[in-house]
Amino acid sequence: MVKSWATLGVDLHLELTGTGVRKGLTNALREAVRSGRLAPGIRLPSSRSLAADLGIARNTVADAYADLVAEGWLTARQGSGTSVAQRPMPTRSVTSPPHRRVPSGPAYDLMPGSPDLSFFPRTAWLKASRRALATAPHDALGYGDPRGRVELRTALAGYLARARGVRANPENIVICSGFAHGLMLLGQVLRGRGLKSLAVESYGLDVHWRLAERAGLRTVPLGFDELGTRTEELAPSGGPAGVSAVLLTPAHQFPMGLPLHPDRRAAVVDWARRGDGLILEDDYDGEFRYDRKPVGALQGLDPDHVVYLGTASKSLAPGLRLGWLVLPPSIAAEVLAAKGGSDWSCGVLDQLTLAEFIASGGYDRHVRAARLHYRRRRDALVAQLAVQAPAVRATGIAAGLHVVLRLPPGTERSALRAAAWQRLAVHSLDRYRHAESTVGRTDALVVGYGTPPDHAWSGALDALCAALSLGGAGGADGAGGVEDFEEFEDLKDFMDRGVGGSFPG
Amino acid sequence: MVKSWATLGVDLHLELTGTGVRKGLTNALREAVRSGRLAPGIRLPSSRSLAADLGIARNTVADAYADLVAEGWLTARQGSGTSVAQRPMPTRSVTSPPHRRVPSGPAYDLMPGSPDLSFFPRTAWLKASRRALATAPHDALGYGDPRGRVELRTALAGYLARARGVRANPENIVICSGFAHGLMLLGQVLRGRGLKSLAVESYGLDVHWRLAERAGLRTVPLGFDELGTRTEELAPSGGPAGVSAVLLTPAHQFPMGLPLHPDRRAAVVDWARRGDGLILEDDYDGEFRYDRKPVGALQGLDPDHVVYLGTASKSLAPGLRLGWLVLPPSIAAEVLAAKGGSDWSCGVLDQLTLAEFIASGGYDRHVRAARLHYRRRRDALVAQLAVQAPAVRATGIAAGLHVVLRLPPGTERSALRAAAWQRLAVHSLDRYRHAESTVGRTDALVVGYGTPPDHAWSGALDALCAALSLGGAGGADGAGGVEDFEEFEDLKDFMDRGVGGSFPG
Repeated sequence: MVKSWATLGVDLHLELTGTGVRKGLTNALREAVRSGRLAPGIRLPSSRSLAADLGIARNTVADAYADLVAEGWLTARQGSGTSVAQRPMPTRSVTSPPHRRVPSGPAYDLMPGSPDLSFFPRTAWLKASRRALATAPHDALGYGDPRGRVELRTALAGYLARARGVRANPENIVICSGFAHGLMLLGQVLRGRGLKSLAVESYGLDVHWRLAERAGLRTVPLGFDELGTRTEELAPSGGPAGVSAVLLTPAHQFPMGLPLHPDRRAAVVDWARRGDGLILEDDYDGEFRYDRKPVGALQGLDPDHVVYLGTASKSLAPGLRLGWLVLPPSIAAEVLAAKGGSDWSCGVLDQLTLAEFIASGGYDRHVRAARLHYRRRRDALVAQLAVQAPAVRATGIAAGLHVVLRLPPGTERSALRAAAWQRLAVHSLDRYRHAESTVGRTDALVVGYGTPPDHAWSGALDALCAALSLGGAGGADGAGGVEDFEEFEDLKDFMDRGVGGSFPG
Repeated sequence: MVKSWATLGVDLHLELTGTGVRKGLTNALREAVRSGRLAPGIRLPSSRSLAADLGIARNTVADAYADLVAEGWLTARQGSGTSVAQRPMPTRSVTSPPHRRVPSGPAYDLMPGSPDLSFFPRTAWLKASRRALATAPHDALGYGDPRGRVELRTALAGYLARARGVRANPENIVICSGFAHGLMLLGQVLRGRGLKSLAVESYGLDVHWRLAERAGLRTVPLGFDELGTRTEELAPSGGPAGVSAVLLTPAHQFPMGLPLHPDRRAAVVDWARRGDGLILEDDYDGEFRYDRKPVGALQGLDPDHVVYLGTASKSLAPGLRLGWLVLPPSIAAEVLAAKGGSDWSCGVLDQLTLAEFIASGGYDRHVRAARLHYRRRRDALVAQLAVQAPAVRATGIAAGLHVVLRLPPGTERSALRAAAWQRLAVHSLDRYRHAESTVGRTDALVVGYGTPPDHAWSGALDALCAALSLGGAGGADGAGGVEDFEEFEDLKDFMDRGVGGSFPG
């Protein structure tokens, strides 16, 4: 699996010390091109950028590139950098699979769900960590309050009120190991209350649905239209039977990208109040809104009926495993009981560091910088698509780290196939549609533009545009999607892992 | 709750900046004495030590002490430091409870389960953290392998083989959020296999038993004698029915303190092999053995039938929430399925830091220093008890962070009462005895000498010896234990929390 250049280096066992660096890098790159891991036409990162990623001298990278240009593996052109040389693509044939098998992993990962991990503020985080550990009392390092550290809950209460309109105080916040842990706890509580099903949106993440199902809750999809999820279907008359909880992404529907219409927000709150229903609000990327004013959290409308779920997975990094629940008083004790008599889940050092990071203003600065960073990517994506694949319509672009690209009807499979040839990990919209949804299928791709590291972004965008200009034209191989391509099994595996396991929020 | 001087400061809202420091400290200390939070006779930390803890100038502390000596709250004697002045203790009476109510929290926490948190190697940890974050590939910060980071699993495989005789490789190690999380995962797996009960030791932690019970497993205690837990009772004939898994502390029985006898080790492994039983080995403090050669892990005898559970909670700090399972191949997939499709539990930064800390030798250095630190405390405890409470016999002293103090028959309740008057949080051995155990009761206390921070240690030891010399003499109030003292409700609450919730391992 190659997700970034840095990984490529590690993965290929690059000898990055001593005199072997240049030779090791040259061999690794040559092998990556030879094996197809780097597809023809892909633009390589600048020597400066790759050198920074690998922590080696820029000249070493430039020398390695020059060697491979000389050998014919790469091409260099003034003004457009270094690319993998064009060679004939393998043609599809069922008679000689071993030869045509495309090697493992994508060249570019455009699946949604991960922020740009190279944008994680390592230096600022370490500084906050040092400050936090310098002032923490000794017993902060012991077994702690099951709600999590009070420093973090206090910082979050202020931040969430200010940035997301959440009505929170340190007492009704519970820290958890990311969204997945929060949803697992809530699933246990709802099942313990005797609930048998959870209403969900027609579009969403199957990994979330499976977490709920693991807790014993059947997921029942609501309808969806241009105003968002049809929350009025929750009305006691005519709505799904036995449902008294609903999981929603009100600020930025995942993956469709639109905010829940005010009428629908009102409808779901009315429903919750009438029958003591519970709304689970997944505010996974509420920080990232570009064009209009921020859409506040639904929780602000009714803190007694909304459980707010937030996470550092999109704003910082999933690897922190830090999320938070803001709980109505009626459910707080049950959630804490599910979590355990002490905080058995969340390491205190990252909690203290995040508290310090928020309190010192570092988190706000990082979010602002990240918002600009992702907005630039979104603008580049929309602009380049308009030129190179004008038949494709980008939607859900006002916020978040992904877009939905609507394709001309009948072209989705050829687009997926073209993307696979470019070694792009990218999903059709259909992958995010609940199996029981009655909403009609749409030809569309979900593209996460937050995922690639900076140096890979322009190459990823080029590859996507190339795939869509080919795919959108309904190329010669239009009949086959990636789903039935034996050659792409490894890529499929990668993408299955992505949706199935690696994106819990 | 006052667990350390540093907390005392925080708790009392000490103004620790500007010109108000001396006044703030003086007021806080006076209030602590007035309220009984600091009991008469308790020795205060040296001004140097308290100043270091609070991060203020030593003279400021010395001045505050001098003020309070002048006011009569404290006494200072050449050579024996500063103590809380002796005043008449409140006498017990049922007619005026508000007056006699002893205020909340212990002066000293001698419950086992937490290491000396002031000994956490903050500086070395931060350095390792910086090195780890400087070299981590970007995608280490993303959603990860459900087993945990490979860097940590690799470092642990080497360390556990070397230090504990565990047969491990990075592939069969799973990182978890401390022992409690590991036990929860294993409980789910065993229940999923259809098990209805789990054999446990006659002595142990009720919080562990309750975790197993929460997973749907009844806990069935084995007998116990001078060779340790009677594992031969696991034999199919005559043993608890329906049991095919057992939870043990073979290296250092908790809390009795002796290693499992070689015959008993052999018996349990034989049992596991005959009927495909599973041994859950809780190696909570295997690093801390003082007198004889280390007792290797049982897992080394039969990696196919032993799940090894290790933790950083004793060797570093519970707040890290880092533990590890070394799994037999037969159960690995089920444990990973229980953990989730991705690592939703454990933050990567602490994992990477611990990997770096182990790989750089920092962990070994810390463990060696901690071993010396705790050994000195144990030696002081044993020596001072021998002089001041010669009727008390310290057992289980060869390893770990706690001892079992055997009391003269019939004196346990008076000892507990005397300890409560000294505001000591300390438990009787009976608190660790399984309700269904047939082992006879013994008058004994379990004393965790690892818990107090360094500056509080000598005061804690003095208070303990004072309590035991009074208690052991069967003082005037010998009839009443802390259990039936309304005055000590807050202390009881604290101790209940300790066993019930704050010590999951």
